[in-house]
Amino acid sequence: MSKLVECIPNFSEGKRPEIIKAIADAIASVESARILDIHSDIDHNRSVITYVIEPEYAVTAGFRAYEKASELIDMTKHKGVHPRIGACDVFPFVPLAGVTMEEAVKLANELGRKVGEELDIPVYLYEYAAKSEERRNLANIRRGQYEELSKSIAYENSKKPDFGPSQMNLKSGATAIGARGPLIAFNVFLDSQDQSIAKKIANAISESKGGFKFVKALGFEIKSRNQVQVSMNLTDYQKTPIFRVFETIKSETERYGVNIGSSEIVGLIPFDATADLVNFYLRLQGFSKDKVLEERLRQTATVSLHI
Amino acid sequence: MSKLVECIPNFSEGKRPEIIKAIADAIASVESARILDIHSDIDHNRSVITYVIEPEYAVTAGFRAYEKASELIDMTKHKGVHPRIGACDVFPFVPLAGVTMEEAVKLANELGRKVGEELDIPVYLYEYAAKSEERRNLANIRRGQYEELSKSIAYENSKKPDFGPSQMNLKSGATAIGARGPLIAFNVFLDSQDQSIAKKIANAISESKGGFKFVKALGFEIKSRNQVQVSMNLTDYQKTPIFRVFETIKSETERYGVNIGSSEIVGLIPFDATADLVNFYLRLQGFSKDKVLEERLRQTATVSLHI
Repeated sequence: MSKLVECIPNFSEGKRPEIIKAIADAIASVESARILDIHSDIDHNRSVITYVIEPEYAVTAGFRAYEKASELIDMTKHKGVHPRIGACDVFPFVPLAGVTMEEAVKLANELGRKVGEELDIPVYLYEYAAKSEERRNLANIRRGQYEELSKSIAYENSKKPDFGPSQMNLKSGATAIGARGPLIAFNVFLDSQDQSIAKKIANAISESKGGFKFVKALGFEIKSRNQVQVSMNLTDYQKTPIFRVFETIKSETERYGVNIGSSEIVGLIPFDATADLVNFYLRLQGFSKDKVLEERLRQTATVSLHI
Repeated sequence: MSKLVECIPNFSEGKRPEIIKAIADAIASVESARILDIHSDIDHNRSVITYVIEPEYAVTAGFRAYEKASELIDMTKHKGVHPRIGACDVFPFVPLAGVTMEEAVKLANELGRKVGEELDIPVYLYEYAAKSEERRNLANIRRGQYEELSKSIAYENSKKPDFGPSQMNLKSGATAIGARGPLIAFNVFLDSQDQSIAKKIANAISESKGGFKFVKALGFEIKSRNQVQVSMNLTDYQKTPIFRVFETIKSETERYGVNIGSSEIVGLIPFDATADLVNFYLRLQGFSKDKVLEERLRQTATVSLHI
């Protein structure tokens, strides 16, 4: 079994698919890289590329992504509802198979140094890779976003990057590079145009406001749909499962008399999270992948087939 | 990709695991057979073995299962809440990969002839293998069960078997062998000891009583749990999805003031059925296996790994 690290870089471009494709192609050109998912959002004006790669190639592929994003994305022209500080806004390494968190932190440091030095982009290390408690939390790094950070970076000591110049790269912005565990990015759309309702519900479920321990949530206006959105990261779906968060959102929407229109998963989710949902909603006990036909077929296959 | 047929024989024994293990071992001894799941139920006094096999070995494996069940199960001593006519009560062939329904029907006929002639067991062909409209429906074949069929088989023309003797094999009973599409066997336990409520709810959802087109349901008393059970076959989970049936049961239980204790899936379910549940309950649109991390890892694997 080969060692694998998962990378889920977020780019400040969600309207021009050809740009995201060019970045994905740059990543895919590196040995062992496999693109698993590409998710673009018009209103966030942001795209998420999910891929896996063997750790020895991870810095090379990450650097190619930054190079291509620097070439094709211009932050001076970027608008979008999601907070962001740069063209490649955030780049997490997630240990997947045979890789420790320490190794992921090392990859974040190596990539950070290279991006800072060779592309002149200010780099902030976050979560497990953070050099200070403050920077563990991505929200602290992103506070004020590209526009304010462009001013404060040069003179505010707390904004001094971990790698790269202490002045904004105006075209590419700054970036956060980190190491973290798996998370689920989950958005719920409300049939309302009142952004304050989305914000209130986001606060109700966010750890930072007294909500669930492993939820980070924001409320956005989604003009292309005439809806508002509760946009979440569930950072430990085993301890704070999706169904509990979703049911809380449902309960809060009733309070405000609005309807949940639909929801979406950004990127991928582990099968276990799916099984948790099935167990909860059907009141099953112990439903797992062993009850899924295709999974049992694979598990019992004597000859490995390319399925 | 090898041809595969799925077999899901049901045996009238749910209390002595060593007997079911002996039958499963007899099946597994045949080339290409892979046991996927074994589910035993004490109150039904019944077990379901799910396995796949290449069609050319399917009759041999099926026959070994009947031989072993004939040897180890005695119908004169069998009691259980689930309707049954024999030791191996029902034996469906389900086309899985590279196999047509016509081929499955042929397998049912070949196995039926062999079981009838060599083991002296009356055999009724059902569903796609049925020789009359009446026998398409397993419930018609099983009506009156082992006890009544033992008397009527000899003189009622409608009870004349398709293969084997026109008199009951007292030790092994009779059997139904058929070909059918995939189904989901799903049981819901109610926190009540009133079997009439389970029966009323079973009627509410059963096609034969005006319920959903692709649901067959019965209400049972489950003494080992002090509960009652709505026991279902969902015979086309794409047209009559689990969530709709479950929500209807939930609504009916409210009417009777009883609570759903838990539920269970007997055997296996296809991944798509899981995805349907997730889509419904989270109001996702188009959640599918392509959003599951492990699935995407397999899909993109350049080297086939034995996972």
